[in-house]
Amino acid sequence: MPPRSHLVPALAAAVALLAGLAAPSASAVDNADTATPPKTTQELLDASQPSDWRTLDPAYTLYMDLAAGRVVIELAPAFAPGHVANIRTLATEGFWDGLSLYRSQDNFVVQFGDVVEDGAQGKSIGSARATLAAEFSRDAAGLPFHALPDPDGWAPQTGFSGGFPAARDGAGGQAWMAHCYGVLGAGRDMAADSSNGTELYVVTGQSPRQLDRNITVVGRVVKGMELLSVLPRGTGALGFYEMPAERTPITRVLLASAVPVADRVALEVLRTDTPLFDAVVESRRNRRDGWYLRPAGHIDLCNITVPTRAPPAS
Amino acid sequence: MPPRSHLVPALAAAVALLAGLAAPSASAVDNADTATPPKTTQELLDASQPSDWRTLDPAYTLYMDLAAGRVVIELAPAFAPGHVANIRTLATEGFWDGLSLYRSQDNFVVQFGDVVEDGAQGKSIGSARATLAAEFSRDAAGLPFHALPDPDGWAPQTGFSGGFPAARDGAGGQAWMAHCYGVLGAGRDMAADSSNGTELYVVTGQSPRQLDRNITVVGRVVKGMELLSVLPRGTGALGFYEMPAERTPITRVLLASAVPVADRVALEVLRTDTPLFDAVVESRRNRRDGWYLRPAGHIDLCNITVPTRAPPAS
Repeated sequence: MPPRSHLVPALAAAVALLAGLAAPSASAVDNADTATPPKTTQELLDASQPSDWRTLDPAYTLYMDLAAGRVVIELAPAFAPGHVANIRTLATEGFWDGLSLYRSQDNFVVQFGDVVEDGAQGKSIGSARATLAAEFSRDAAGLPFHALPDPDGWAPQTGFSGGFPAARDGAGGQAWMAHCYGVLGAGRDMAADSSNGTELYVVTGQSPRQLDRNITVVGRVVKGMELLSVLPRGTGALGFYEMPAERTPITRVLLASAVPVADRVALEVLRTDTPLFDAVVESRRNRRDGWYLRPAGHIDLCNITVPTRAPPAS
Repeated sequence: MPPRSHLVPALAAAVALLAGLAAPSASAVDNADTATPPKTTQELLDASQPSDWRTLDPAYTLYMDLAAGRVVIELAPAFAPGHVANIRTLATEGFWDGLSLYRSQDNFVVQFGDVVEDGAQGKSIGSARATLAAEFSRDAAGLPFHALPDPDGWAPQTGFSGGFPAARDGAGGQAWMAHCYGVLGAGRDMAADSSNGTELYVVTGQSPRQLDRNITVVGRVVKGMELLSVLPRGTGALGFYEMPAERTPITRVLLASAVPVADRVALEVLRTDTPLFDAVVESRRNRRDGWYLRPAGHIDLCNITVPTRAPPAS
């Protein structure tokens, strides 16, 4: 018999290593001459300490509720304080409740907010600010930055800052969040200062890093990306839906802090400024289990998925 | 009124440049001191000549018919002659007809073929070969290779070969297809030579370049990716569907050459070995229209979408 029955677990075996949860360890090189097998990503995580994980600040966490489920978004005040403040006001006042995801462009973004037809009046933004200064980048000084070991074609340096994929010129220059899968940005018009946080997009395709430093990035989807990434692609220009009925209604967007503690999403995110995280990254750079015959010895910023977990029973 | 109504076209404006069809030209730098505005990608394509385009060889083109529509796949015999030959046999004999897409893992791949439950017997592979040698890479010598200008962290050199995203050590080393969005590969088990082309995957997420040279790549989806990328993510391990009813049935997979000429998909693909293609790439590396305030001056291989079009009326 042909080994077809093996081929399903086959690529599965490959993929276990890619899912973010199973690959050799940072000590692979050090251990090359010893009998100690390198740890997989999963083994590294299993051996993690409580201090390797963090919880989200509910005052800076958005829940987007769709019929299909809840999307959890971490806001990034360190990168876009003005936009994040406005978004918190908009969420608190229920701006997105009853609005929609009105665009899904394949291998690029989904976008949501208020679709205002020509000549119509949009939904009130309440006490939120109508205009904001652009926040494309910020001083690198004062921003924690945990650098990755590999070169990047788009920026002098890449790494993580507070759990967000980021880049910078160097310690003395500018820093900015990088457009990786799941990153949340604020749509704008031609003018740099034309975003106010009402119209937001989430990256659902190959990292469009050319947007870096051209638009204000405000956060990242931490959980629930699979609810956004499967939205049917719009058949209009740029993935806009041609018929209103094609849009996905947003039940509500609110701050986690507005939800009773017992009803919040129980979630921990791996810290990105620890030796454990370095080991996890190395376990993705060089996968030395039996399936990978040629470890890459490299990883791009946007290939790194920051692990999350349900809090362990205590 | 706040400019919210502007924000929809706003990001739209951004996105027009990303959609593969609207951005400044390769001559942007040369023209910086002149009054000639740089050409957009769309303008470059509009000025293209018939010789800038090619059609697919129907003997090496697969149609995957789903209830939602047709996916067009170009096979790559230059990279994987053994697998492509087997896949052509399998398609000719209707191997995938009535089988399913049985896996969809967010930000990674969809996979299709024959799900064989433990102890069950799989569908006959007819006259196809049960085992094949691995075809992870090939001699770069003799393979046309049109290099990109930018560095890449995963390989010494990247570019396009016959329309496929590719990488190589150099002209005297090995060459291989790169795992970009839409690339089609042959699932395998732990053994390098355990793929036979029956179980195939398509990349639907951030380019998993760590798979390069670890698995046999056999082609690329040229049209219809949006039919695969929106498949609900499986909730089982690695994105496998837990319930058979969740799988997406495959009506049939057949060679375009088996379809009457009048019923084939009318499609042209931009050649990737021309000065026009270089100009298109440059128009993506540096976007100098009014929206982009900071052109990147860089592009990664997997950020380049090869344009396609319906053949012009003649």
